[in-house]
Amino acid sequence: MKVAVIGAGGVGSYYGALLARAGHEVWFHMRRDLDAVRAGGLSVRSYLGDFAISPVAAVADPREIGPADLVVCSLKATALADAQNLVEPCVGPHSRLLLLMNGFGIEEQFTGLLPAARVFGGMAFVCINRGRPGVVHHLDYGQLTIGNAADDAEETARLCAEFAAAEIDALAAPCLRRARWEKLCWNIPFSGIGVAAGGVGTATVLGRPYLRDLARDAIHDIVGAANADIQALDARAEPLDARAAVDSMFSRTATMGDYRASMVIDFVRGQPIEEDAILGSPLRRAGELGVAVPTVRAIHAFVLSALAVRDGDVIPYTRENVAASLE
Amino acid sequence: MKVAVIGAGGVGSYYGALLARAGHEVWFHMRRDLDAVRAGGLSVRSYLGDFAISPVAAVADPREIGPADLVVCSLKATALADAQNLVEPCVGPHSRLLLLMNGFGIEEQFTGLLPAARVFGGMAFVCINRGRPGVVHHLDYGQLTIGNAADDAEETARLCAEFAAAEIDALAAPCLRRARWEKLCWNIPFSGIGVAAGGVGTATVLGRPYLRDLARDAIHDIVGAANADIQALDARAEPLDARAAVDSMFSRTATMGDYRASMVIDFVRGQPIEEDAILGSPLRRAGELGVAVPTVRAIHAFVLSALAVRDGDVIPYTRENVAASLE
Repeated sequence: MKVAVIGAGGVGSYYGALLARAGHEVWFHMRRDLDAVRAGGLSVRSYLGDFAISPVAAVADPREIGPADLVVCSLKATALADAQNLVEPCVGPHSRLLLLMNGFGIEEQFTGLLPAARVFGGMAFVCINRGRPGVVHHLDYGQLTIGNAADDAEETARLCAEFAAAEIDALAAPCLRRARWEKLCWNIPFSGIGVAAGGVGTATVLGRPYLRDLARDAIHDIVGAANADIQALDARAEPLDARAAVDSMFSRTATMGDYRASMVIDFVRGQPIEEDAILGSPLRRAGELGVAVPTVRAIHAFVLSALAVRDGDVIPYTRENVAASLE
Repeated sequence: MKVAVIGAGGVGSYYGALLARAGHEVWFHMRRDLDAVRAGGLSVRSYLGDFAISPVAAVADPREIGPADLVVCSLKATALADAQNLVEPCVGPHSRLLLLMNGFGIEEQFTGLLPAARVFGGMAFVCINRGRPGVVHHLDYGQLTIGNAADDAEETARLCAEFAAAEIDALAAPCLRRARWEKLCWNIPFSGIGVAAGGVGTATVLGRPYLRDLARDAIHDIVGAANADIQALDARAEPLDARAAVDSMFSRTATMGDYRASMVIDFVRGQPIEEDAILGSPLRRAGELGVAVPTVRAIHAFVLSALAVRDGDVIPYTRENVAASLE
């Protein structure tokens, strides 16, 4: 099939490369890596085995791609405002759209372009960092959980089967919303605390008892909000279990080394971060539901504080200026 | 009366100077400012009017002071382990002891030296920063709330009257424990968040909506724990009101300018901070009482995280090393 990857960063390039390796016609819309990929192809350094694809159809403008059977949108949530315009040229009468983006209510923004049953949300549990242009480092895991905006089980099963045939570990989620909350059980503690603590990796969050306890508290908050939300949407959906979520997230993260989530890397590099998709949006939803999520609120506050300091909006005192002010 | 101020930093020097100005025989045990005060006396730059006392009886060793009528201990909570040894030489058969220290259970550590009815806890609501050696800056407020370790109202009234005669605004607290919790309603949000946010003053905490909300949440937590604790100790004590506490703390702090609590200054200067007295100890008490204080827990976690970063125990990623690790 013809696949268009819109906003191919680390995650989009990785899954796109797997689809290309399996023989699909994959086009990559990209910015930073465009020239390098056009010149030298795309290399995946994976713990499962390195591979490369070359030549690669890489474009700066999705209009060069035209309608595709499958559009994979892996833009940052911070680029959501542009996403619809970038996706639209690739949507034809039979296209399907897979959104590999963080945040709630993303799918709804595209159901004007195509029917909900052909819109999917994907949650990648994967450790990927971008290397030098044209190189993606696949460090650990790789499962892609896929849900459907209409919770259409048949459509989800079909897409998962196509991905499985390309050696992508794709798991069908009967309830997309529940799967999004599950993803937040990782993102909020590890991306959120990682940024709030000044830009640290997973080993620090798990290894410092006070941050580990905070991560546990956060997951309990998230599961509380998730279950209220899931219940409100679909009474039949299975609730999440907070202890099981903590155990699963902690044990899966313990083997990652000191992995830096992309939000941590973006933070350290001075780029916009997905704080609204990962923290602001679930906080608003919890507020609507009347569920208290005080630990997540506090993490969000310190993420915003860390951002303000990073961007010079808040200047903390230093040994020098605190001394001068006391003379 | 003969007064011994043990651990005269900003707060101890200020109240000691007021007592000396009123004619009491005040001895100052001090470290950093010792030589300057011996040579040039003690200057108070106060918004209520500057004054100075000279000569000043300043000593490095409390044994040079001997028994005093009133011992004022204003050591940092971080020096609690030494406090008993430093106070002891100044305690005679009729001495009273006023502890101007943060933390719970401080008074109990001294009731082996003198009866509980002669041990007092003092909570200063005052903006004081130390200037160059021998100079104390009194920036705002000044009220000293005094409670008695045996909640002896007569003893408390007597001490307050003596202080009032020295132009110290002294307020008798019928329940010392309640007054300590009230002080935490300021210290936890403004000292705690100030450190956790990397070393910022009160204007930042109040001025940034996300930190202000966090401060409000923290006060609600503290009042919840305080009321459970007060109820457990003395069912007749008046409970605290969370909304009133928020209003009072916020409105009183709004006029302070960008005041840096001593914990913030200590943090910025690389010195030990009173995190256990101000955060650890109330958290333990809340835990014993089974009261959830998630916002305070989170603030404590980020205080510990900020300390670990400050002291080089945790090294956050930087633009440089995060890039290098991705090559």
